Amino acid sequence: MAETLARRHHLLGLEGMSAEEITPYLDLAANYALLSRSRTAPRDALRGRTVINLFFEDSTRTRTSFELAGKRLGADVINMTVATSSVNKGETLLDTAATLNAMRCDLLVVRHAASGAPALLAQKVEASVVNAGDGMHEHPTQALLDALTIKRHLGTLSGLTVAICGDVGHSRVARSNIHLLTAMGSRVRLVGPPTLVPGVMQSLGAVSIHHDMESGLRDADVVMTLRLQRERMGAGLVPSAREFYRFYGVDSRRLAFAKPGALVMHPGPMNRGVEIASDVADSTQSVIQEQVEMGVAVRMAVLDRLSRMRTAS
Amino acid sequence: MAETLARRHHLLGLEGMSAEEITPYLDLAANYALLSRSRTAPRDALRGRTVINLFFEDSTRTRTSFELAGKRLGADVINMTVATSSVNKGETLLDTAATLNAMRCDLLVVRHAASGAPALLAQKVEASVVNAGDGMHEHPTQALLDALTIKRHLGTLSGLTVAICGDVGHSRVARSNIHLLTAMGSRVRLVGPPTLVPGVMQSLGAVSIHHDMESGLRDADVVMTLRLQRERMGAGLVPSAREFYRFYGVDSRRLAFAKPGALVMHPGPMNRGVEIASDVADSTQSVIQEQVEMGVAVRMAVLDRLSRMRTAS
Amino acid sequence: MAETLARRHHLLGLEGMSAEEITPYLDLAANYALLSRSRTAPRDALRGRTVINLFFEDSTRTRTSFELAGKRLGADVINMTVATSSVNKGETLLDTAATLNAMRCDLLVVRHAASGAPALLAQKVEASVVNAGDGMHEHPTQALLDALTIKRHLGTLSGLTVAICGDVGHSRVARSNIHLLTAMGSRVRLVGPPTLVPGVMQSLGAVSIHHDMESGLRDADVVMTLRLQRERMGAGLVPSAREFYRFYGVDSRRLAFAKPGALVMHPGPMNRGVEIASDVADSTQSVIQEQVEMGVAVRMAVLDRLSRMRTAS
Repeated sequence: MAETLARRHHLLGLEGMSAEEITPYLDLAANYALLSRSRTAPRDALRGRTVINLFFEDSTRTRTSFELAGKRLGADVINMTVATSSVNKGETLLDTAATLNAMRCDLLVVRHAASGAPALLAQKVEASVVNAGDGMHEHPTQALLDALTIKRHLGTLSGLTVAICGDVGHSRVARSNIHLLTAMGSRVRLVGPPTLVPGVMQSLGAVSIHHDMESGLRDADVVMTLRLQRERMGAGLVPSAREFYRFYGVDSRRLAFAKPGALVMHPGPMNRGVEIASDVADSTQSVIQEQVEMGVAVRMAVLDRLSRMRTAS
Repeated sequence: MAETLARRHHLLGLEGMSAEEITPYLDLAANYALLSRSRTAPRDALRGRTVINLFFEDSTRTRTSFELAGKRLGADVINMTVATSSVNKGETLLDTAATLNAMRCDLLVVRHAASGAPALLAQKVEASVVNAGDGMHEHPTQALLDALTIKRHLGTLSGLTVAICGDVGHSRVARSNIHLLTAMGSRVRLVGPPTLVPGVMQSLGAVSIHHDMESGLRDADVVMTLRLQRERMGAGLVPSAREFYRFYGVDSRRLAFAKPGALVMHPGPMNRGVEIASDVADSTQSVIQEQVEMGVAVRMAVLDRLSRMRTAS
Repeated sequence: MAETLARRHHLLGLEGMSAEEITPYLDLAANYALLSRSRTAPRDALRGRTVINLFFEDSTRTRTSFELAGKRLGADVINMTVATSSVNKGETLLDTAATLNAMRCDLLVVRHAASGAPALLAQKVEASVVNAGDGMHEHPTQALLDALTIKRHLGTLSGLTVAICGDVGHSRVARSNIHLLTAMGSRVRLVGPPTLVPGVMQSLGAVSIHHDMESGLRDADVVMTLRLQRERMGAGLVPSAREFYRFYGVDSRRLAFAKPGALVMHPGPMNRGVEIASDVADSTQSVIQEQVEMGVAVRMAVLDRLSRMRTAS
């Protein structure tokens, strides 16, 4: 019940959300994607509202995407990065939250290295909280934009086979995608070496684990590649870029295992020649740039929708 | 005379300002606090005006508070922090000022580690200068927001007993509060160890010095705690957090010396368990979060009022 | 042909541009300079447009100037600096460009340490690209603002003698000025020691090289000083500030070689007592502050004009 209430105002993760709860975000985002292209998006949906981007981890793409989304809806957008944050002076996360709250922040976008930090904040602030990536937990707007991109190309999110390849274990993007895609009725395969796709991930839901690319990609509708997150790996466990590419890089030879015309995705930023071959990234099957475009539309939808839910309640 | 003229356009400090000069800021801020809550603050009071936040020292709260205040009044707000400033290339402070001036900056908000830097800038720029904290000198908008918070709760700023506790000596917040509160007719007690509340502070005005918490807090209407500013202390003079808390931390036992229901304040960010006990910070007597809220209102008032004075002159 | 097309949407450099191509920027900027003073600049010329300041090198002045220009025309302005950029995660410049492109960036302002980086980006993005300084190549908006400042004072850009003094070799500002001033029909002298004004610069066009200040400044209409860019010099080649000032600093004695009332300029930030004497920088002949003011007007003109060209095509 507390969780249901929380959902009405926040977007902390996709785990446990149903297709009925997810779909309105995708529909609104699809609409914003159309309006953005025709430059007719409403400039005042968030007029007078304050969006604060509270980033304890750096991220060009995600921060910029939320900043653009907020500004295009007419909000006052304030950026706070850890470097300029008073956490250096010993303040607790909750005191920071209380401060932002007192500033009448309406929408708080949070990225944090610790899993659960956005959920902790959401318990204390009046603002709606959007999780923009927390530790190895979730990154729900990334999964929503991935879903919107897939839906635009394949018309559905149901009955698909989606292969998520590479450094799945460290990826909050993978976790959010697993929750969303299985909720929408697709099959998810996790593909990578045992060190990066540990067997315990089987517990995340209706997923299958593949340690070789051929069986993992066979007849897949979507091949989702992930950035090799060396900074999250312990010393001694880091595979060399060359070795990783040789066995698990998505190149045109391996992509041929998937369905003809299978979508190629990557959440960015890419390491070309590590997790993905340059020609695959730039091929006609690649929708990587469209993912970024949908990112702005999805964040407009999330900010707009949470703001309305908050006002209505 | 020069000082009087300066006052008409700038807010460099509260020293020497009378109750008649201070009150209009508080009245306007009180009005903005009401309008903000009802979301009816005018969005165009500073439309077309440029506010530049020139921060040579980092500060999440103060910079964000000014940024919000400016944006909520419709100004174009530009942030400049020392890291992105050309002072690294050898430019003088006054050349930086001239540059901002040529950019037709209307309101210049300055934080600097050197006492007097905002006053120096004010002599050279056409913009109105707001001191957002200079060295150990003053932090006038903090004192104004403290005063507004007190006035909302106690109805007056006259005849009160205010105990400012802890690291008073290094605190520009304390100095500005001393000037404001004594000008408004309240009694100020400075409470802390001799190393942090040196006897020479007696010269700041109608203040009394207390080295023990019991006499300092006895029957106080307001207990204002300050952050222990270790970064400003010489090596060897830094008290341990544990030792400081044991003798001078504001906990519920010591708070009981003050009047029943005495207000508990802190300019933030707090070090819980150092200068203030966690249960006191979160108690019903604490108005710490309201201080932050009043901070935005006060900065709206200051920016608005200085902008009008400038235009009128 | 490709170059001509590129010019229609981008401002990558001034090399090869004719007086007819340069003049419309100056005329529009002159108009914006007037409107800015009377505070009647149109606030909606770029309403709904997105300007991204992508700075791989830090620069207070230039970044702020573009930010102000964009905001004063009503654009959504997003700042990205290298510190917050995903280039740290291994992304290529072109992937970054593709990302910004997907975000429907309309105007991309780029500063980069590598000559040619903005031109490379311009080949890949749909946005109009403005070069805000690339390596030792060009800094076209600086030359445009210099030209506008000169024209306001001397009424023309034709038939003048302009002495560019000091660290010419490392200066992208000098290169852009050489291209613009010679295109407009002025004579350019490059004045400095052989290490900083190498003979090969003769190839840049109708310029003359002078290694002594007297012959270089004699009867000049404009004396343009440049910052000594020690950070670009190899170890062992850096002249001492004192030595440089003694032989090549622009002081009042040397300025007297130029025409009476000759304009003194500097792109900032200045090193007083190195390339320029303090009394010269602050003299009535100095138009250094006006250069900064014209900088905002020129950037408004460039953003506005490129945006219109893009829409019209």
